[in-house]
Amino acid sequence: MMGPEIERLVQLLARLPGLGPRSARRAALHLIKRRDTLLTPLAESLRAAAENVRACGICGNLDAGDPCGICRDPGREAAAICVVEDVADLWALERAAVFRGRYHVLGGTLSALDGVGPEDLNIAGLLERAAAPEVREVILATNATVDGQTTAHYITERLAGCDVTVSGLAHGVPVGGELDYLDDGTLAAALKARKSF
Amino acid sequence: MMGPEIERLVQLLARLPGLGPRSARRAALHLIKRRDTLLTPLAESLRAAAENVRACGICGNLDAGDPCGICRDPGREAAAICVVEDVADLWALERAAVFRGRYHVLGGTLSALDGVGPEDLNIAGLLERAAAPEVREVILATNATVDGQTTAHYITERLAGCDVTVSGLAHGVPVGGELDYLDDGTLAAALKARKSF
Repeated sequence: MMGPEIERLVQLLARLPGLGPRSARRAALHLIKRRDTLLTPLAESLRAAAENVRACGICGNLDAGDPCGICRDPGREAAAICVVEDVADLWALERAAVFRGRYHVLGGTLSALDGVGPEDLNIAGLLERAAAPEVREVILATNATVDGQTTAHYITERLAGCDVTVSGLAHGVPVGGELDYLDDGTLAAALKARKSF
Repeated sequence: MMGPEIERLVQLLARLPGLGPRSARRAALHLIKRRDTLLTPLAESLRAAAENVRACGICGNLDAGDPCGICRDPGREAAAICVVEDVADLWALERAAVFRGRYHVLGGTLSALDGVGPEDLNIAGLLERAAAPEVREVILATNATVDGQTTAHYITERLAGCDVTVSGLAHGVPVGGELDYLDDGTLAAALKARKSF
């Protein structure tokens, strides 16, 4: 008989992506056995996130404070806006540390199947930002999926009136990737976009 | 650039069993996007667990309140004590709902390799409980591993002076199990303990 406190904790943990009922039970025990080093700090961290973390009114990034740290940072170039589907994609680009401009988080992709239209995404905000005189380039870094590319095409059309360069990420062989494991579409794109040494 | 609040949350989540850095980031985003339905309830549930859940002074079970719900329950037979390594094993037996006695959680197994001796486990408490006149049987439900069985043997010896029956779980083919997938040890045990129909 699991007590109601622990049962509720297990049920909530089981709703996290990647944790099923069994791993949620393991996680709950792991936490309870580490009250001071993990359980209490995690409770406090979650409470702080619930209180402080907000979606940035400019770009849609999640951060404590609105505008977010990136939009507030005067060191980030205002000339380039990188458009991503989700905050997780923004984090991935930031980990790579190759982009010094600003971001714009759409909050998903257009999807006829799921009934997601342009008004469900943060596209109006992007058009407004792209119209600002300091913005020179919009990089569409949506995923290389059908929905991601459809969304990129749609945004490209909507940006036609703005005085900005619209670009997309290159397709090709992932660095460290083995040809034998790649799909035909990637190989075809990599061959088509081949470069002379 | 991930804000410090989110970064700390991701780091703490990554310390849960079953979550690596990538799944911890996914979990953090999942939580933040579900502030009212998941993030705040989980923070509150963790806080409640940190405040209320304690190890039972009698059996070592984790529950709000000491003695735990099982030790407090007058409907549970005091005649039988089932000895398990960990609270997770107690939960597994409770889910099966086949045992109506009390439990005793050792908190691990003897292990020469890891330097775990009898004094590191809750064995003294078990001997004390087994000496009570109402206790008739001690069921050793440690895992069927070398360390689990070593621990069971050690406890059997220590219980020699007490007037209790000491038993262990039966070995055999798991219900629903296919012989082709079983190891030789299990098959040998199942054959040796065969029963006439």
